[in-house]
Amino acid sequence: MEKVNLAEKLKLFDDCWNPKIVGELNNQHVKVVKMQGEFPWHRHDDEDEMFLVVEGRLTIRLRERDISLEAGEFFIVPRGIEHQPVAAETACVMLFEPSTTLNTGNVRDAKTVEHLERI
Amino acid sequence: MEKVNLAEKLKLFDDCWNPKIVGELNNQHVKVVKMQGEFPWHRHDDEDEMFLVVEGRLTIRLRERDISLEAGEFFIVPRGIEHQPVAAETACVMLFEPSTTLNTGNVRDAKTVEHLERI
Repeated sequence: MEKVNLAEKLKLFDDCWNPKIVGELNNQHVKVVKMQGEFPWHRHDDEDEMFLVVEGRLTIRLRERDISLEAGEFFIVPRGIEHQPVAAETACVMLFEPSTTLNTGNVRDAKTVEHLERI
Repeated sequence: MEKVNLAEKLKLFDDCWNPKIVGELNNQHVKVVKMQGEFPWHRHDDEDEMFLVVEGRLTIRLRERDISLEAGEFFIVPRGIEHQPVAAETACVMLFEPSTTLNTGNVRDAKTVEHLERI
């Protein structure tokens, strides 16, 4: 039962593509993550996923179009939809998704994070 | 499947204490709301509720202490916990909560909003 300052949480780490849990409610996680470069294409069969850009710019590539997000903008990727987050420079992002969500969805590779850290 | 710009959504209305739905995922709603003045004390018996301040300052009074939030800060009120949002000047807030959530929780009064608008 403490408040969370997103900028302060984001100062606590530098690694990219490694989401950290900063809040939990109604079986959903609130996470912060830094993104830079290209993430693997993947989908989540059972989870909708929300990306809210806190700082920087993020592109979410869908198979048929790109969604370009700046700070203060969010996009919800519906379950089952393939997507690829891409950021030319480091983007700071808040994620909102069910606590069951694996970051790489249906794919397992070097970027898969099995056990999320809480900060 | 469109992105949402929080600042643009918040320009679309001026009324306070009347949350608008701007996103939906995993049976949760993402809402934006303007708050000014004192909201009734209430609790949500079955829903945890997240308040993320987008602009301005918001105090969430709990029975034993106050939580003071500025832009970029959030607080999760766990289910069953009585709380009272208070803002001296207009605060712009994003809410995450289950789609079943009634704004005044266990209380019904003039500020109760039965049917939420989508913007």
